Amino acid sequence: MAPASRATPDKLPAWQTLKQHAEELKNVHLKTLFGSDRSRWSHFTRHVAGLTLDLSKQRWDDDTLEHLLALAHDAGVPGAIDALLSGKRVNTSENRPALHTALRLPADATLDVEGEDVVAGVHESLAQMERLVCRLHAGQWRGATGKPIRHVVNLGVGGSDLGPLMVTHALADCRPRDIHPIEVHFASTMDGSQLADYLSRFNPETTIFVLSSKSFTTIDTLSNANTARDWLLGRLTHHGDFASTSDVSAELIVRQHFIGVSASPEKMSEWGIAADHQLKFWEWVGGRYSLWGTIGLPIALVIGMANFRELLAGAHAMDSHFREAPLDDNLPVLLALAGIWNVNFLDIRAHSILPYDGRLEYFAAYLEQLEMESNGKSVTRQGQAVNYSTCPVLWGQLGPNAQHAFYQLLHQGTQPVVCDFIAPLKRYDEVEDPDTRRHLKAQHRLALANCFAQSRVLMLGDDALEDDGPRPEHKRYRGNQPSTTVLLDKLTPHSLGALIALYEHKVFVQAVIWDINPFDQWGVELGKQIATDTQAIIEGEGDIDRMDASSRGLIEAFWAAEKDE
Amino acid sequence: MAPASRATPDKLPAWQTLKQHAEELKNVHLKTLFGSDRSRWSHFTRHVAGLTLDLSKQRWDDDTLEHLLALAHDAGVPGAIDALLSGKRVNTSENRPALHTALRLPADATLDVEGEDVVAGVHESLAQMERLVCRLHAGQWRGATGKPIRHVVNLGVGGSDLGPLMVTHALADCRPRDIHPIEVHFASTMDGSQLADYLSRFNPETTIFVLSSKSFTTIDTLSNANTARDWLLGRLTHHGDFASTSDVSAELIVRQHFIGVSASPEKMSEWGIAADHQLKFWEWVGGRYSLWGTIGLPIALVIGMANFRELLAGAHAMDSHFREAPLDDNLPVLLALAGIWNVNFLDIRAHSILPYDGRLEYFAAYLEQLEMESNGKSVTRQGQAVNYSTCPVLWGQLGPNAQHAFYQLLHQGTQPVVCDFIAPLKRYDEVEDPDTRRHLKAQHRLALANCFAQSRVLMLGDDALEDDGPRPEHKRYRGNQPSTTVLLDKLTPHSLGALIALYEHKVFVQAVIWDINPFDQWGVELGKQIATDTQAIIEGEGDIDRMDASSRGLIEAFWAAEKDE
Repeated sequence: MAPASRATPDKLPAWQTLKQHAEELKNVHLKTLFGSDRSRWSHFTRHVAGLTLDLSKQRWDDDTLEHLLALAHDAGVPGAIDALLSGKRVNTSENRPALHTALRLPADATLDVEGEDVVAGVHESLAQMERLVCRLHAGQWRGATGKPIRHVVNLGVGGSDLGPLMVTHALADCRPRDIHPIEVHFASTMDGSQLADYLSRFNPETTIFVLSSKSFTTIDTLSNANTARDWLLGRLTHHGDFASTSDVSAELIVRQHFIGVSASPEKMSEWGIAADHQLKFWEWVGGRYSLWGTIGLPIALVIGMANFRELLAGAHAMDSHFREAPLDDNLPVLLALAGIWNVNFLDIRAHSILPYDGRLEYFAAYLEQLEMESNGKSVTRQGQAVNYSTCPVLWGQLGPNAQHAFYQLLHQGTQPVVCDFIAPLKRYDEVEDPDTRRHLKAQHRLALANCFAQSRVLMLGDDALEDDGPRPEHKRYRGNQPSTTVLLDKLTPHSLGALIALYEHKVFVQAVIWDINPFDQWGVELGKQIATDTQAIIEGEGDIDRMDASSRGLIEAFWAAEKDE
Repeated sequence: MAPASRATPDKLPAWQTLKQHAEELKNVHLKTLFGSDRSRWSHFTRHVAGLTLDLSKQRWDDDTLEHLLALAHDAGVPGAIDALLSGKRVNTSENRPALHTALRLPADATLDVEGEDVVAGVHESLAQMERLVCRLHAGQWRGATGKPIRHVVNLGVGGSDLGPLMVTHALADCRPRDIHPIEVHFASTMDGSQLADYLSRFNPETTIFVLSSKSFTTIDTLSNANTARDWLLGRLTHHGDFASTSDVSAELIVRQHFIGVSASPEKMSEWGIAADHQLKFWEWVGGRYSLWGTIGLPIALVIGMANFRELLAGAHAMDSHFREAPLDDNLPVLLALAGIWNVNFLDIRAHSILPYDGRLEYFAAYLEQLEMESNGKSVTRQGQAVNYSTCPVLWGQLGPNAQHAFYQLLHQGTQPVVCDFIAPLKRYDEVEDPDTRRHLKAQHRLALANCFAQSRVLMLGDDALEDDGPRPEHKRYRGNQPSTTVLLDKLTPHSLGALIALYEHKVFVQAVIWDINPFDQWGVELGKQIATDTQAIIEGEGDIDRMDASSRGLIEAFWAAEKDE
């Protein structure tokens, strides 16, 4: 479907208004905005689905937001939200819908997409996943030599890794009790580093692998899978370490030690995945939006299916809000507009994600993919080069740790950065030992105090001090650094689902305004192709003279090292 | 010591020359530079201390480098290198030397600093550390109930965490054999997340804690330590889980389960660390430069003292090179100049660190602190506000994984980014099983092929394809993105030491040119102070009405959540 022609955002009247408005606001310090408007907290804060979004420390005022909302309207955001959620082909370059939101529709919903209801299929795939999870949690899944499984290693990369890794880490406290103990691990990187470590430690008899790849052609994952398969075969057949098990066939080993998750059942079967160990995935969900379906198997293995369904329910609550709330009360829209304002009008090109909760250790890495792979684009849906900035560079770290690492640059560097502070309000209520609980709750309050203090100092600079006496220049803080704070009532499957969906939809709204397609990733295709060529040359099967001087030098350095045994 | 007055870099003639030169080069594509100079590989590549530095894919030519070298000369880099290495008070705002390089001087060296030789003291502290390591590796360190120690948890944050964490992960293959098995863990974040996880899993009888804080006032670390101490006391005294051990005193528990590493023996003693379990650290080494001394205890516990000394030797090899090599052959200087060129003349404000080796998983996080905390400054050593950019935003991820995450933005986004690709040439030679070795070596070649291919595509864009036929705009790549490649002959303690020192000195050279002090971090002080005030208010001990509307709202949201039991 060719996208409806529309003006690029910089041609919309609201854009010009905002440019002029930015000129006026340029010299107004954030502390002045706070000083002149005592109601900023209530004006710029919203609470939805267990999340409080505080946008009052953005460097904007009521007029700014009004102009930004006009921009969103003129850019067609309301219609685009409807198109996304109703299954229109919003992924224009690949001519298909982007239906991650369908993965979290309740079982009694219907969503007619081009004449077909997708909800039943989604829930059938969840039920299939649940059957596998139950077998493993009951200790009923046996390895080829008859032992119950202890270790599950997820082989996947990008969307098949970051989402499950992030969520299992965040919700590890939600493990169901009274199940057969299963440990879930992740091996993603193509060089085999993590896998090599697991192979040196795990018992092959009680280890299974989840081969997770939407296309089932991801070389990173397949090369890890091949190494894992040969490791199992080498150790479990009659030549291997478990001699008593000489009747174990290669077929049985592959059957009992691999689960496949992919949109291509043919390729799974070809590789050797047994039909009843194949979990189907959907062509119409992008990898970075895929943790909500069968790619989320590792999550369900850690937190159980009931909690997994809570995660979906939380995301669905945010979807419903996104669909129904007016733009000026719509969390994803407001968060997106703050970003547009920072990138396009204040020229803030870097964005830091700073959770004040160790369980969210991988949240920044997750968002790096979600945001930069979605919106790191420079061509409109009409194929025009943009002449405005799109996605900023986004990175992060646990906030308390980053205080001892790169906050120096946030407070006194020359690069402007916008920050998202993220923290749960309540924590540690379930710790059993009262002394340890008391200590840990105090540590939580300490973390919150730091979280609130940092955004305050970034905003006020020296004025955060009551006694702002004369000090040398290197002890001064200019302040005026904008930030967002997202509070979770409590970190639960439900609130985490809502949090992730908040960012997903924020990314979508920004893409609509920038007139780019957030659902493709053509920018990674050429690298794959050239890597294949390069590998052939490294292996001596190509013509190195066709390459540039640097690539030649690098490959020759490798050859020299190989010779130097 | 007041620093010698000098012109800020933008007032130096070479800076003006470079500005003009950048205008001329602005429209020259990197592929053109390669096309017109077949000798770029040899011109822009150097090999030192097991590292190959390829700067040929920077967007520069011979003239650029000549002007940059002139800038380095005019900014006094040679004298500054000498001042750093000879122990002058280069940390001007704190009026002391920055002597991390002294920590890696060989035992037979001497370094006279203000009338005193520091080398003997350094080696005495290494010997003391070695004694502790040997006791633990021999299984001779017993917990309070008499059992040998199994788990060592490092409590530290920032420099007391990132360096040891990064290196132990990178060199985990170097574990010595035939020692009592010790597992080393890291708990850094003040909210207690990692610690709470360990406390729920470890046996207090066989767990000890390393309390690592240069000042011994770091609240993050002390709050974790207090939680850990009460956990030990609660479980190991007669009220606890180990009732048979009712004669265990609190003193014995603290004595046998805590090691301290700090520059303040008084504070360690006050906290309860036994005198012979105190490792001394030096005031004249900054936290982010501290892994080379006693803060490196977790490293020595994982890789053994012999390997730890190899790490030091590798760093020392880079120090010697840094001191002796002429600027135009000096790796840290060349790497620094590439950065200056990118930030100050090409306006590239973001820098990505992309190791193609899973063992370097924490290297980017380590450099984030090293670079942004050192050079995220905007005041010259004379107290003047700079009007040029200093440290860029720096972030990274394992390269192969980032290919599936944010490379989209690198290839097709609107933000220019410079990348450092890092990879070892040889790998997996020591894997015992021949089949697994063959597989893993193939995975290593695959990773190298991807590493080389990505920098090639970033440079050439569409021209990396032989058949560059017509394609839609969203499949086009503009190329012209600069990058550096650093190859390690092999990842060993020695080469890793050299690699870290390379970046340390790069940061120093850039600071010299920018005329800022890389060794202080005043930008993090105010946050600590305001956090203490905020905590008091959260605990009900301060006046919330003095605060801004946002801080008030956030704290009140916390109070409301607390009440809502």
